[in-house]
Amino acid sequence: MRDDGVSLDETMREMGERARLAARQLAVAEPAAKSAALRAMADAVERDAEAILDANRADVADAQASDASKAMIDRLTLDAGRVSAIAGALREVADLPDPVGTVASEWTRPNGLVIRRVRTPLGVVGVIYESRPNVTADAGALCLKAGNAVILRGGSDSSRSSAAIHAALVHGLEAAGLPRDAIQLVPTRDRAAVGAMLTGLGGSIDVIVPRGGRSLVERVQREARVPVFAHLEGLCHVYVDRSADAAMARRIVVNAKMRRTGICGAAETLLIDRSAPELVAPLLSDLAAAGCEVRASDEVRALFTPALPATEEDFRTEYLDAVISVALVDGVDGAIAHIERYSSHHTEAVIAEDQAVADRFMRHVDSAILLHNASTQFADGGEFGFGGEIGIATGKMHARGPVGIEQLTTFNYRVSGTGQTRP
Amino acid sequence: MRDDGVSLDETMREMGERARLAARQLAVAEPAAKSAALRAMADAVERDAEAILDANRADVADAQASDASKAMIDRLTLDAGRVSAIAGALREVADLPDPVGTVASEWTRPNGLVIRRVRTPLGVVGVIYESRPNVTADAGALCLKAGNAVILRGGSDSSRSSAAIHAALVHGLEAAGLPRDAIQLVPTRDRAAVGAMLTGLGGSIDVIVPRGGRSLVERVQREARVPVFAHLEGLCHVYVDRSADAAMARRIVVNAKMRRTGICGAAETLLIDRSAPELVAPLLSDLAAAGCEVRASDEVRALFTPALPATEEDFRTEYLDAVISVALVDGVDGAIAHIERYSSHHTEAVIAEDQAVADRFMRHVDSAILLHNASTQFADGGEFGFGGEIGIATGKMHARGPVGIEQLTTFNYRVSGTGQTRP
Repeated sequence: MRDDGVSLDETMREMGERARLAARQLAVAEPAAKSAALRAMADAVERDAEAILDANRADVADAQASDASKAMIDRLTLDAGRVSAIAGALREVADLPDPVGTVASEWTRPNGLVIRRVRTPLGVVGVIYESRPNVTADAGALCLKAGNAVILRGGSDSSRSSAAIHAALVHGLEAAGLPRDAIQLVPTRDRAAVGAMLTGLGGSIDVIVPRGGRSLVERVQREARVPVFAHLEGLCHVYVDRSADAAMARRIVVNAKMRRTGICGAAETLLIDRSAPELVAPLLSDLAAAGCEVRASDEVRALFTPALPATEEDFRTEYLDAVISVALVDGVDGAIAHIERYSSHHTEAVIAEDQAVADRFMRHVDSAILLHNASTQFADGGEFGFGGEIGIATGKMHARGPVGIEQLTTFNYRVSGTGQTRP
Repeated sequence: MRDDGVSLDETMREMGERARLAARQLAVAEPAAKSAALRAMADAVERDAEAILDANRADVADAQASDASKAMIDRLTLDAGRVSAIAGALREVADLPDPVGTVASEWTRPNGLVIRRVRTPLGVVGVIYESRPNVTADAGALCLKAGNAVILRGGSDSSRSSAAIHAALVHGLEAAGLPRDAIQLVPTRDRAAVGAMLTGLGGSIDVIVPRGGRSLVERVQREARVPVFAHLEGLCHVYVDRSADAAMARRIVVNAKMRRTGICGAAETLLIDRSAPELVAPLLSDLAAAGCEVRASDEVRALFTPALPATEEDFRTEYLDAVISVALVDGVDGAIAHIERYSSHHTEAVIAEDQAVADRFMRHVDSAILLHNASTQFADGGEFGFGGEIGIATGKMHARGPVGIEQLTTFNYRVSGTGQTRP
């Protein structure tokens, strides 16, 4: 790409300008055109499944040759099932209601002015991700549905797979008469392209969404000069109150920790009411039986001897693995204090039959998602009914929790008068 | 303040930490306590009116000695009427509904989970303003109502006035049993305090709101490392369509430009439909008769000879004065194109009887506030029914248009289950 003498910065800036122009067309595109594009994308993904799988096999071969981790190769690898899941997800987004132009609220002033708050697209979204090729389709689809242009920068290890999927997306855009620049894929593996995106490409990018590991998100949050929708980690807590239904607590704790240990909504720390010591052994033996390593404070270990000792560091660690830290706390206020000190404010759950305890937990814990008598693994845009998510945000600005289509829009005020002038 | 060996950075960081602690208490404060504090503040402002006016007289004397501009001295000067207006504004905020804990939306998932999106405070707001002492009370009140702690940094020229008003606010906080650190006033004139606030005081400040002239806002937007609610300028347009009611158009144009020329919602550019030349002379003679200088393109001047020639620069200028730039455009699409090119995307108005024209303008112009058949001078949180505003934002993130109490909150998701685990 730089052989023709065009610098990376110029190339990126031009991508930004093309995205900005495409965004202006998308902002007023008919909902039917966006849905038609998404369905045509799904058809193209299925039609080109073999080409996508060939490209993916080449990526996987390179990854294996470079001794990539088993987990990374699993995230990278596509098969027929995963490809048809990509097509299915595109059709699901096509079927979702279109947010653009919907009236979020409406009121009439005493002087007769009718004020409507109307959803509008954000503009241009930059998505920076790593090895999962399906993010190319998921992020492209959600941004398009919200009327945004998107600039995608996938991981170099999945570049062939992402390019093959991107070709199908562009086919769908053109089939529906929408600008191909609505979904652009950065065509270089040059890491400097990420730095250029983080500066906003001279005002062309409105928000950056990083999808990947801690080191990527840290870099984005440190360097970005535009807003970022992200979470650094999901250090999620489950508090079991003395009033909990013991059987329910056991089911929820095992599910919150062990259903999938690698997702951001997985529980990492279990807090148990000090006044309910009888809950400790059943909860921890269930976890151990499910294959979870238990690291606990001394008073917990006195009640469940198989537990290993937990250090201060354990309560600050997002394991993303079959390991859990456990401590006793003085009721709900003790749980609130522990969470305030250690949590990443992503997702926390309280297990209690006492509604006053649940209400106090919900009111005092300042995290994006709070659950009462349910598993933290529900922290997911699909589970919230958002029709997928582009990520989960722990920031407080604009988007918080699952970032779905609605969070990819902004709004403006449209005021209808009958000649009013201001006194 | 630095005499005791404590550095400015330390002092500011400690203010941030105290604000963070106060914010945690405010987030769960009872609505009645916040309202009681606001009423006690109003009483204290009235009780201490003489002390506030004495402090203000000293500020005004210094300003006059330093040859400050007449406009600046007018913004700075308080009198008995302005002081009681400050008290009245505090009582109005006390009477507004409390946003914290209100359910913005609620839905039930097929698995029975009930998801509520609940408003919560942002945390700590930093307000940086210039000479208007009343901002001390207005900003403090709005932030408190939304459950936020606030760090106020007023202009050095109004420091005595702001300190006297701040003392009344602190009295109100303590009378209601709320932490005095909920509303802190930076006690130094050192400009470096602004720089410290723009870095977020080590994570203590969640958002910065600048209230002042272009140079202040430019510095804040350039240096801030936390989100900013602001607008650089209000280069507002009025488009008069061929379908306009001529009498209505004349009333609205004069009001939009001349009611108050110094506010951000004042019109700066008038766009007239090229196919309605008969509208030009009446509209411009009304403006001239009202004392407005008219700067127009050549084809406009051919239709209204008193007009002065307008340069390209005129269409990029926020006059904030009795001056207007005028051009002809090819219908609503011509107006949309001109606004797209020149507008600061703050507020624009369309005057038209043809609803299709108004709808097209509203859908295609991407500004924070759009008005149909009404004056741009309604661009104001009070006029929107927000019960005052802390500013007007032209950014697309989180807050856009008037920033009232609701925009000073964020939200979290509170999910109520009955033991659900994720399959």
